[in-house]
Amino acid sequence: MPYHRRYPIEFNHCDPAGIVFYPRYFEMTNHVCENFFREAVGVSYADMMHQGSGVPTVRLETDFRAPSRLGDVLEVTLDVLRLGTSSVTFEIVGACDGQVRLVVTITLVWVTDVAGTIAPQPWPEGMKARLQAFVRAT
Amino acid sequence: MPYHRRYPIEFNHCDPAGIVFYPRYFEMTNHVCENFFREAVGVSYADMMHQGSGVPTVRLETDFRAPSRLGDVLEVTLDVLRLGTSSVTFEIVGACDGQVRLVVTITLVWVTDVAGTIAPQPWPEGMKARLQAFVRAT
Amino acid sequence: MPYHRRYPIEFNHCDPAGIVFYPRYFEMTNHVCENFFREAVGVSYADMMHQGSGVPTVRLETDFRAPSRLGDVLEVTLDVLRLGTSSVTFEIVGACDGQVRLVVTITLVWVTDVAGTIAPQPWPEGMKARLQAFVRAT
Amino acid sequence: MPYHRRYPIEFNHCDPAGIVFYPRYFEMTNHVCENFFREAVGVSYADMMHQGSGVPTVRLETDFRAPSRLGDVLEVTLDVLRLGTSSVTFEIVGACDGQVRLVVTITLVWVTDVAGTIAPQPWPEGMKARLQAFVRAT
Repeated sequence: MPYHRRYPIEFNHCDPAGIVFYPRYFEMTNHVCENFFREAVGVSYADMMHQGSGVPTVRLETDFRAPSRLGDVLEVTLDVLRLGTSSVTFEIVGACDGQVRLVVTITLVWVTDVAGTIAPQPWPEGMKARLQAFVRAT
Repeated sequence: MPYHRRYPIEFNHCDPAGIVFYPRYFEMTNHVCENFFREAVGVSYADMMHQGSGVPTVRLETDFRAPSRLGDVLEVTLDVLRLGTSSVTFEIVGACDGQVRLVVTITLVWVTDVAGTIAPQPWPEGMKARLQAFVRAT
Repeated sequence: MPYHRRYPIEFNHCDPAGIVFYPRYFEMTNHVCENFFREAVGVSYADMMHQGSGVPTVRLETDFRAPSRLGDVLEVTLDVLRLGTSSVTFEIVGACDGQVRLVVTITLVWVTDVAGTIAPQPWPEGMKARLQAFVRAT
Repeated sequence: MPYHRRYPIEFNHCDPAGIVFYPRYFEMTNHVCENFFREAVGVSYADMMHQGSGVPTVRLETDFRAPSRLGDVLEVTLDVLRLGTSSVTFEIVGACDGQVRLVVTITLVWVTDVAGTIAPQPWPEGMKARLQAFVRAT
């Protein structure tokens, strides 16, 4: 089962053409990832900050398949495409009324401050197990 | 010669980890495209709006190669990777002190309102010629 | 009873100093107003757009009393300070753990497109009655 | 002579009604203040961060007198209304073609990290002298 959140398309998302301005979609993808880590993995971004860790984004691909408009409600799902030693690739799909609006493939890396240097590190065991549960069945 | 703009990394771009928050990079890519169309192609987004046209983004890929920090100045270049009948794919590269920070490949489509329906249309001749001038030599 | 919403302080709200960047608070005040109109007044911003109406902001005052940080949850309330013929002044207060973080007084005007000109108009009866219910008892 | 910057109104500033979305104006006021400190006062926000200082905003008032649209160019001025021991109040005015669009009165406080606590401190002499030069003649 993928992780799921609903996003009503609101005034701040939309451009003068009346459709979602694409940088706002990436505030949304960040928001999905942030809440996924807090709710599903059990580690909030605040927790990470306090321990000198983080999950910076290193790569993303996006297909914008159809525009979204003010008043639409996007159903957004996230699941894990690939789980690496210190990285994870999510697929995030936003749809409205059964129509896919965007498909995002996004890779994050687990980094930790080790002796003053931020560097990729293997996922902590507990986090890796939680992420594993969202790997898409093939 | 690619199109070029400089972006000082300012307070509003940065996240609590002190690096550019990636949705802000996409405000920047939109800004580069918007100014490229106005300055280099000769058609502003305001012009497009007034005539019922636009250049929505249909696809993008981004590699975030190194973080950018408050006070950095990004040198950003844009050139044309592919020029289609009604689409264009740009490569946008941001670098600081010779280090590439991000590489974005982004595809926009020329759409026009024809009888109340927004649909892709072939580039107007004048725009196509201007875009052609930025196709990367191979 | 004022209108109420909860806002977790998330990554996108915070600046390099680790506190909410004040323009993000105004995305939040807009969001409170937008949801108040949809949920409590019964007219969404999408509804307004479709009928050529809107509620642009004409004035605001804000006291930022204490900073908010990643992981805080703001309890935000809105009530009506003054209800005019075509305007309304809200007081929006954000607090966390009983500490007031910001107090915003914000005035919006009901405008409608009349023969191609956007101009202030008296509130429709139904909207005025709903707004009246949120006037703060003195 | 007030400090001055020009802001073309671009796609990212505008809402579905085609006018500047007010939270974007506050990104602009922050941007004016940030560049004023860097260019006119001689201390960048990056400099401040590195020394554990900052200029958080504690109060603002704004009159939105007329809307701004895509393609407008705002001429924005900043001068000093009041210079206190550890605070400064700016007046920021944005105008286009001689029409005032918004007037912002905004108060910032100089804070420094003293033994782990961020607290207001008197302006350093050099900064105070530079700020003094922008106090509006009466």
